[in-house]
Amino acid sequence: MVYLTRKEHFNAAHRLHNANWSEEKNTAVFGRCANKNWHGHNYDVYVTVKGEPDPDTGFIMNAKELSSLIQREIVHRFDHMNLNMDTPFFQDIQPSTENFVKVMWSLLEPHIKGCRLHSIRLQETENIYCEYFGE
Amino acid sequence: MVYLTRKEHFNAAHRLHNANWSEEKNTAVFGRCANKNWHGHNYDVYVTVKGEPDPDTGFIMNAKELSSLIQREIVHRFDHMNLNMDTPFFQDIQPSTENFVKVMWSLLEPHIKGCRLHSIRLQETENIYCEYFGE
Amino acid sequence: MVYLTRKEHFNAAHRLHNANWSEEKNTAVFGRCANKNWHGHNYDVYVTVKGEPDPDTGFIMNAKELSSLIQREIVHRFDHMNLNMDTPFFQDIQPSTENFVKVMWSLLEPHIKGCRLHSIRLQETENIYCEYFGE
Amino acid sequence: MVYLTRKEHFNAAHRLHNANWSEEKNTAVFGRCANKNWHGHNYDVYVTVKGEPDPDTGFIMNAKELSSLIQREIVHRFDHMNLNMDTPFFQDIQPSTENFVKVMWSLLEPHIKGCRLHSIRLQETENIYCEYFGE
Amino acid sequence: MVYLTRKEHFNAAHRLHNANWSEEKNTAVFGRCANKNWHGHNYDVYVTVKGEPDPDTGFIMNAKELSSLIQREIVHRFDHMNLNMDTPFFQDIQPSTENFVKVMWSLLEPHIKGCRLHSIRLQETENIYCEYFGE
Amino acid sequence: MVYLTRKEHFNAAHRLHNANWSEEKNTAVFGRCANKNWHGHNYDVYVTVKGEPDPDTGFIMNAKELSSLIQREIVHRFDHMNLNMDTPFFQDIQPSTENFVKVMWSLLEPHIKGCRLHSIRLQETENIYCEYFGE
Repeated sequence: MVYLTRKEHFNAAHRLHNANWSEEKNTAVFGRCANKNWHGHNYDVYVTVKGEPDPDTGFIMNAKELSSLIQREIVHRFDHMNLNMDTPFFQDIQPSTENFVKVMWSLLEPHIKGCRLHSIRLQETENIYCEYFGE
Repeated sequence: MVYLTRKEHFNAAHRLHNANWSEEKNTAVFGRCANKNWHGHNYDVYVTVKGEPDPDTGFIMNAKELSSLIQREIVHRFDHMNLNMDTPFFQDIQPSTENFVKVMWSLLEPHIKGCRLHSIRLQETENIYCEYFGE
Repeated sequence: MVYLTRKEHFNAAHRLHNANWSEEKNTAVFGRCANKNWHGHNYDVYVTVKGEPDPDTGFIMNAKELSSLIQREIVHRFDHMNLNMDTPFFQDIQPSTENFVKVMWSLLEPHIKGCRLHSIRLQETENIYCEYFGE
Repeated sequence: MVYLTRKEHFNAAHRLHNANWSEEKNTAVFGRCANKNWHGHNYDVYVTVKGEPDPDTGFIMNAKELSSLIQREIVHRFDHMNLNMDTPFFQDIQPSTENFVKVMWSLLEPHIKGCRLHSIRLQETENIYCEYFGE
Repeated sequence: MVYLTRKEHFNAAHRLHNANWSEEKNTAVFGRCANKNWHGHNYDVYVTVKGEPDPDTGFIMNAKELSSLIQREIVHRFDHMNLNMDTPFFQDIQPSTENFVKVMWSLLEPHIKGCRLHSIRLQETENIYCEYFGE
Repeated sequence: MVYLTRKEHFNAAHRLHNANWSEEKNTAVFGRCANKNWHGHNYDVYVTVKGEPDPDTGFIMNAKELSSLIQREIVHRFDHMNLNMDTPFFQDIQPSTENFVKVMWSLLEPHIKGCRLHSIRLQETENIYCEYFGE
């Protein structure tokens, strides 16, 4: 079994803010991430699939098709978007890196054919990333 | 003369939108960067000063003081902010990388003592950066 | 158990082309990677071994010896080579990143003494890499 | 279960030298790393914790708190220090990357609350890193 | 005057070989770069234009248009190509990084409108790059 | 005229300390960099030469020869060394990045033949580098 990883990138705005909390508590927990006028990030997403190389192509999955799939399911949905306002995924949960990578899994996993989705790694800043393995 | 460069980073939200134009023209020119709900970036800023190394310290400028200055004048002003809404600098000009790097020059240059500000480079994405030399 | 990784790099030419297929099918599947006059890559290879640190040296394996081994078994064989024409490994299989990393495992694994080969990661471009764990 | 990684960095001096060995053997095994006047590195440390995102915050662990913890337990202890002379950890073992990453685990692990420490990766040079999973 | 840089990438095969020299001399000068079956690289190209930001857009040049121009004039011509065999530019000169960056200048410069081409930097490997300023 | 850059790396220990000052003043100015037991860095050095490409080779200077020259004059002198104790260059000046890059210029410049040394860039940490142009 071989693991193939494809990286794509996009950027977006978001805000961490819990509507059930006071502004004081939001600021205490989220700091500047709670800024009501938003902030944003350049996101890098690394998608890893696993399987046996096909005897005819040598591929687990054609990396161009994997790229197209990530573009269609992830990049086109989130690029230059406001995660809180422009997408339906963060109405009841925070757009944290942790929750975001799980949302990405649910969007990509049904479309991986002929091999299996192994993990998604989402890099939010140079110093912070989250990884999810589907369980 | 030696050139010393210090890198700092922050992230922010912004939007490119010309209020004198129709929405159609804004979209035609700025594309997704005109999204009314904002998007954002991780910004890296590289500040270069030039001068002769001091005989006692070997420094053009103490890199820690340069770091503190960039933190005070740049990072604290823009980190986790909305460039259009939370700062006074982009009321009449677009918060493009080009204009942003010039704003940074005007904020930093008066505070560089004992050597000279040579250039500021602002990296907006992995693939795009602007540099300004003050003239 | 600690995992030690050593990175080395080289560059090579290759072509993805299945001799059992028509040119049309080769182009449909492999795109520009099927160009009959070859293309090439800068490859980065990350070799990970695992074991207990030796009480006298603190090493799982001397990183210089690991480097020399990768140089001898991988870099000297493939650097500035045409994978299809200059090596015996890709006569019956495609020189895809998937197959290439498995070839590397078979070349390195017999020479790892005193600890165990854990994985090999082969980076073909900034956006694509494969990893193999020997099973 | 989601995995969150935070990167921090520092630099330090060290020397690999086994006092039970002759100088000849030290040089034969450790090469220039045995230089009696020390050498040093810029170290990057990647700390990974795992757990379920909190429903209120979306966090496994607040990345700022994780950063502060790494600063307190790792960076403040080792930054600009001589690992052999200025710290108590390498009196009986070599300050190799392998041993250093295990020391880091023992310093950090007791302070991780509400989630679990998964791994620590210590990058010593661009080409060498070690990873430890606590077992 | 502000300087805007846009990065694009592609990969290609090539060979350094002077037909007027003996094989011995080719090997002595070019080493493995003279391998008759080619080798290849992942190339990163950084194109820098300079000018005054437009008052309406804040742009020296729309970075997307600059990207499209580099794609059309550089990437589509050279990506997955054999520089010696598949392009007309290296019949009488070597496809060295030095000559390649000058060829790129001649292809791009006539198409830069409304600002000026300042420099092109071509990164051939992690450790080698060339830069050309048009004079 | 084309500019060719070659990167090499090494690591070393050093200390910033002015013997004419009190310990209090040394700590106030240099902070932890004055630690009497040294600290260290991974250094990356980028050497840039300029000239016209040779018609026969396409080279300003053979990048392998440039690499060998940097290895001989810079890397072998400083790699795994204590800049203050193991080299003669920092007896009367601080081993700051600024002074170090000027020392490198004086070591390399006399050996550059057939083209000219343009600049040396010395990266001390991810966030700090100095550049020198020989004047």
